[in-house]
Amino acid sequence: MAASVLVIDDDSTVRDSMVAFLDDYDYQVLSAACGREALQLLAERSVDAVVCDLKMPGLNGIELLEKLKQQQPLLPVIVVSGAGVMDDVVKALRLGADDYLVKPILDMEVLHHSLKKSLQRAQLEADNNAYREHLEKTNTELKRGLDELRNDQLAGRQAQLRMLPEPVLLDGIRCDHKIIPSLMLSGDFLDYFELDDKRLVFYIADVSGHGASSAFVTVLLKNLTYRLRRNLQRGSSDDLLHPSQVLARINSELLASELEKHLTMFYGVIDTATLMLEYSVGGHFPMPVLLHGDSAEYLTGRGMPVGMFREAEYQNYQLQLPEPFSLLLFSDGILEIMAEPTLNDKEALLLKVAAKSRGNLEQICGQLGIDDLPEVPDDIAMVAIGRGVL
Amino acid sequence: MAASVLVIDDDSTVRDSMVAFLDDYDYQVLSAACGREALQLLAERSVDAVVCDLKMPGLNGIELLEKLKQQQPLLPVIVVSGAGVMDDVVKALRLGADDYLVKPILDMEVLHHSLKKSLQRAQLEADNNAYREHLEKTNTELKRGLDELRNDQLAGRQAQLRMLPEPVLLDGIRCDHKIIPSLMLSGDFLDYFELDDKRLVFYIADVSGHGASSAFVTVLLKNLTYRLRRNLQRGSSDDLLHPSQVLARINSELLASELEKHLTMFYGVIDTATLMLEYSVGGHFPMPVLLHGDSAEYLTGRGMPVGMFREAEYQNYQLQLPEPFSLLLFSDGILEIMAEPTLNDKEALLLKVAAKSRGNLEQICGQLGIDDLPEVPDDIAMVAIGRGVL
Repeated sequence: MAASVLVIDDDSTVRDSMVAFLDDYDYQVLSAACGREALQLLAERSVDAVVCDLKMPGLNGIELLEKLKQQQPLLPVIVVSGAGVMDDVVKALRLGADDYLVKPILDMEVLHHSLKKSLQRAQLEADNNAYREHLEKTNTELKRGLDELRNDQLAGRQAQLRMLPEPVLLDGIRCDHKIIPSLMLSGDFLDYFELDDKRLVFYIADVSGHGASSAFVTVLLKNLTYRLRRNLQRGSSDDLLHPSQVLARINSELLASELEKHLTMFYGVIDTATLMLEYSVGGHFPMPVLLHGDSAEYLTGRGMPVGMFREAEYQNYQLQLPEPFSLLLFSDGILEIMAEPTLNDKEALLLKVAAKSRGNLEQICGQLGIDDLPEVPDDIAMVAIGRGVL
Repeated sequence: MAASVLVIDDDSTVRDSMVAFLDDYDYQVLSAACGREALQLLAERSVDAVVCDLKMPGLNGIELLEKLKQQQPLLPVIVVSGAGVMDDVVKALRLGADDYLVKPILDMEVLHHSLKKSLQRAQLEADNNAYREHLEKTNTELKRGLDELRNDQLAGRQAQLRMLPEPVLLDGIRCDHKIIPSLMLSGDFLDYFELDDKRLVFYIADVSGHGASSAFVTVLLKNLTYRLRRNLQRGSSDDLLHPSQVLARINSELLASELEKHLTMFYGVIDTATLMLEYSVGGHFPMPVLLHGDSAEYLTGRGMPVGMFREAEYQNYQLQLPEPFSLLLFSDGILEIMAEPTLNDKEALLLKVAAKSRGNLEQICGQLGIDDLPEVPDDIAMVAIGRGVL
């Protein structure tokens, strides 16, 4: 669209010649013979630029310029005046005139050029402002969207936290844990609880992926162990006491869930009187670390990931725990924050860190600098089960 | 910190007087006797503003101004020159000089005032740029954060979608559904499936709240019905066939889950040979609508929300379905998008809309303009179960 220009000059000859010239250049030209007339016209409609004589009866050019710049700071104003009025030039410049042309304008191309530049400058400034407003608006919208999703995740996280156990002393055995989720919702899960005053059940599980879809599976895990406890109390099934059967049940329920998720898991039952540990391994890595005296070693055992193969079978392992002892369980997120080049090196470091910690999870976090990490690449879960002072 | 100003003038008397004056005003003042010296100095360090004489031997003020504005468009430059050189004023103005002072500067306050204004203008422009950059950076970060959470929700949503049934024709009965989640993850859930070629099980559930924490519960629902089907096949329990027992089991498992969520639910079983419907209501609202011929009516029945009270009990209702028939189930999100003032009005409208749809869910969405809504305040779920042409 053609730019509109208001030409203001009390000399009708000069005014008409500028109007005629600008008309030819496809500007949409309006004109006024004095400052008052110009202001009246501008009260009714806006223009894209103003060309203004300085010496005019009544409201002169400088006064008009001042008013215009107050009303529309971005409006390009080009002042035109006779030679030799240096003071006016300086004043006009200070008031924000975009250009100053000396009368008589012998080459009208100069006026066109000046107008073009001023209009470009004004357009650039308007674009900048529009861009900034767009950015501010987008920012607000993004923040709202993010807040909404964050609040949703937070509610999910709180629901998930409620499913986790409280650190406790069960029949003389200390149970403690820590979860550091990579997103708000974690695919790592763990639990420990006492059965009929003589058994302690505990497990750690690491669902493939992380976030909401993995968190779904942790809800199933909690529900399954709840049902197995109920069945045991009712006497309808003692699956809960047999680690391999627990893993097999989770395997089949997970495959039936259509969630397309699998997990790795370590599940154990300790007879608190004899300290006999029975456990089963569902593809879990790293294996738990057993601390006794100054020694630290990985438990042995293997088994397929849970929820991946319909025909998966799991094995029961038995181990007589020493006293005092500490058993440390980890999800594989703990290996991902280590700088060591190979998996073997990471496992060796974990063993060293575990030994030094004497079973204290905070100590492990401290050694690995976990609390100082701004975020972790994968969920990290840890469980400590122990009796006596190492 | 004091602003640094470079004063350039070949006349040492003028230069020294400006330097002395500005020194007193706590500017950090540097000086140069010509354009070349000024450029050398500026190659080594930056300044906040420049005061520059126009008439100088060698590189003159206009040429210097041009170079400076090319290098640092935002640097305030105030030109100073003798009176009567109007052309220079106009040139300096076109090149972006911030102000033009006429020599001799009788009142040095004018210089200070001009510098102050120019520095403010430059600061404002720099602040604007910094603000825009800040906005752009924040935008990028917000987008990344949002993308991460959205992708997480999307993965959860896909997992949730996999748990939903496909529209099917089961033993001559059409089953169809639609879910419009308010967030990506929905607290509404539904399912329908055939049992031993002579029964159709279907339900709709609306978990309190929405988003991730509510979606957790939908996973439990799917898992529970899976287990009840398995139990029925094994002959260990026929709870699945008794709506009130299903609701009671969900009630107790939900209370045990620690998720602190409850839900409303309608659960029904149809004998596909006799079209006898047995159902139970867990605080669900609105009730299902039964269409037959031109009549449309709400089913009757009541019961407590599920997962709220440990002692909740549920009742079985029986109804002989006519043929042809269509049974339409809704979550209460459908009422929230209606403009009607009272709940009674909304229920009346839903009945009218249902009757007009003749059991077609797309038709219902069309009538209520659901597909045109940018977002819905609460999840909306619908199930249509029917046989024959209405």
